[in-house]
Amino acid sequence: MTATHEHRLTRETVHHAWDRSLPPLLTIDPGETVTFETRNASDGRVTPERRSGVQPPPRQDGGFRGHPLTGPVAVRGAMPGDTLAVEILALTPGPWGYTSFAPGRGLLPDDFGDHYLHLWDLTRDPAPFVRGIRLPLAPFLGVMGAAPAEPGAHSTMPPRRNGGNVDTKQLTAGATLYLPVLVPGALFSCGDGHAAQGDGEVCITAIECDMTATLRFDLIKGQELPEFQYRTAGPLDPRTNTAPWYATTGHGPDLMEAARAAIRHLIAWLVREHGLTREEAYILCSVAADLRISEIVDAPNWVVSALLPLSIFEQTEAQ
Amino acid sequence: MTATHEHRLTRETVHHAWDRSLPPLLTIDPGETVTFETRNASDGRVTPERRSGVQPPPRQDGGFRGHPLTGPVAVRGAMPGDTLAVEILALTPGPWGYTSFAPGRGLLPDDFGDHYLHLWDLTRDPAPFVRGIRLPLAPFLGVMGAAPAEPGAHSTMPPRRNGGNVDTKQLTAGATLYLPVLVPGALFSCGDGHAAQGDGEVCITAIECDMTATLRFDLIKGQELPEFQYRTAGPLDPRTNTAPWYATTGHGPDLMEAARAAIRHLIAWLVREHGLTREEAYILCSVAADLRISEIVDAPNWVVSALLPLSIFEQTEAQ
Repeated sequence: MTATHEHRLTRETVHHAWDRSLPPLLTIDPGETVTFETRNASDGRVTPERRSGVQPPPRQDGGFRGHPLTGPVAVRGAMPGDTLAVEILALTPGPWGYTSFAPGRGLLPDDFGDHYLHLWDLTRDPAPFVRGIRLPLAPFLGVMGAAPAEPGAHSTMPPRRNGGNVDTKQLTAGATLYLPVLVPGALFSCGDGHAAQGDGEVCITAIECDMTATLRFDLIKGQELPEFQYRTAGPLDPRTNTAPWYATTGHGPDLMEAARAAIRHLIAWLVREHGLTREEAYILCSVAADLRISEIVDAPNWVVSALLPLSIFEQTEAQ
Repeated sequence: MTATHEHRLTRETVHHAWDRSLPPLLTIDPGETVTFETRNASDGRVTPERRSGVQPPPRQDGGFRGHPLTGPVAVRGAMPGDTLAVEILALTPGPWGYTSFAPGRGLLPDDFGDHYLHLWDLTRDPAPFVRGIRLPLAPFLGVMGAAPAEPGAHSTMPPRRNGGNVDTKQLTAGATLYLPVLVPGALFSCGDGHAAQGDGEVCITAIECDMTATLRFDLIKGQELPEFQYRTAGPLDPRTNTAPWYATTGHGPDLMEAARAAIRHLIAWLVREHGLTREEAYILCSVAADLRISEIVDAPNWVVSALLPLSIFEQTEAQ
């Protein structure tokens, strides 16, 4: 499985919106491999010299203007109605990362009044958090997408039919992502590296980091996908699913409110049982806890579980 | 860890509603163990002589009148504000099971016009399905609950603060369930055995079966739980998480609709790639596919993944 060409796109040139009119930086044949350097989501606003903890509110001119994305790459012969298969060959995070939250955003927009930042040393794996907790890295790209069919510039924040900011933690090295092709050439871009994340990304950030990603592109001609699909690299959570998990639950007629309740209960449990601050607990939920829909049929009340792997509390170096 | 008494409740005596006024069949001390025989959810309406496939509509007088539950068991000293810890020591399914769906119910109430039934031979593990698919058994009780605080009879269908029909597949042997105590004595009952289920139980039934369950009860005095919590037996899905998973996704501003889309896409994939009928695919999603909330923060669109373990397609006897 050798690529016919060696392609590399640096993180010097990025774009901050989805737009089918963006000219491709590179055009490849199906079967070829491209290495993408990507910038972290803060696009330079967060630097590793910062201190973890409560932060002053950001300046008005310092807002988020869209994920910095590397690309687009055009794939010869890709046409609307085809599927673009993106095989994720390798992912290497940069040496540091951050997790942050802010009032008014995330799953619990009203529960925390401060801006908060936690910095991670990613030269160590598992990465140390607080109170002996250590998180194995499971890197993936939060954003992988093709250009949308609709003309104009579209925010990178919501995922759409073209993929985009799907924040799906199972897309680690070895996985294959299947994306609907919506414009000729597909026009693939990526970014928003995450060194680890739980299902849900509840505080609105994962372990955000620079990433170097090597991806191989293939076409499935004439197979139209309704929304993105994927095949995982192997068994799920191979480095954290090594011990029991603790779960809190929320129930009720609204899945969003049930998820909020489950995460609030898990924060309370982490504060009570493990001595974390509420802010540290919210950060840990975002990077390590998985939201699962336990049942969605016992009307009128559904159950959402928030599952945390207890292996992250082990003190031994070997996981 | 020997119980001070050997207690056993047969499946001859059941109740069909939650009611704090039900007299306990048994009163135990904290630390004691009870073996419960439970009836399957059909309460005798489904028998193993039936044939799998489309069924005639049930008779008007044959409807569901509540899960048949074994209990209640009173725990001496349990008071509102305490937590009841239920350690699940052993679970043994009966020799056969069924999965069924009906128009107007489940996650896709409008997608299937017929009543449908699939019968399972549970004397084999993994249990054979169709087309070489085999499902490892991972038994649990769909219903475990304490009596509700509110007087009167309450339907067994929705889960509530007292637990009940939580249909949470992680509650296998070795797990511990934590329930809020809402009335003196707690008054625990259980039933609704499931030989296997996916997160979501999307068609509204799992592999429904009779069950023999051995449970040990402890009290955590003065620790008030907002909703049920649990600790799993060990790593999740130890018998199916042995190979890659395939996932379909749904995205949008409503988690319920995103879950529906993900399951519809997984049904389509099972029909196209594995030759199942749509009905067989819906059954398989309910007993084997997991609904996870991949991201719940990238407004306005959330992502729900439906993940299916590809290990169930392996043809070898050893799993």
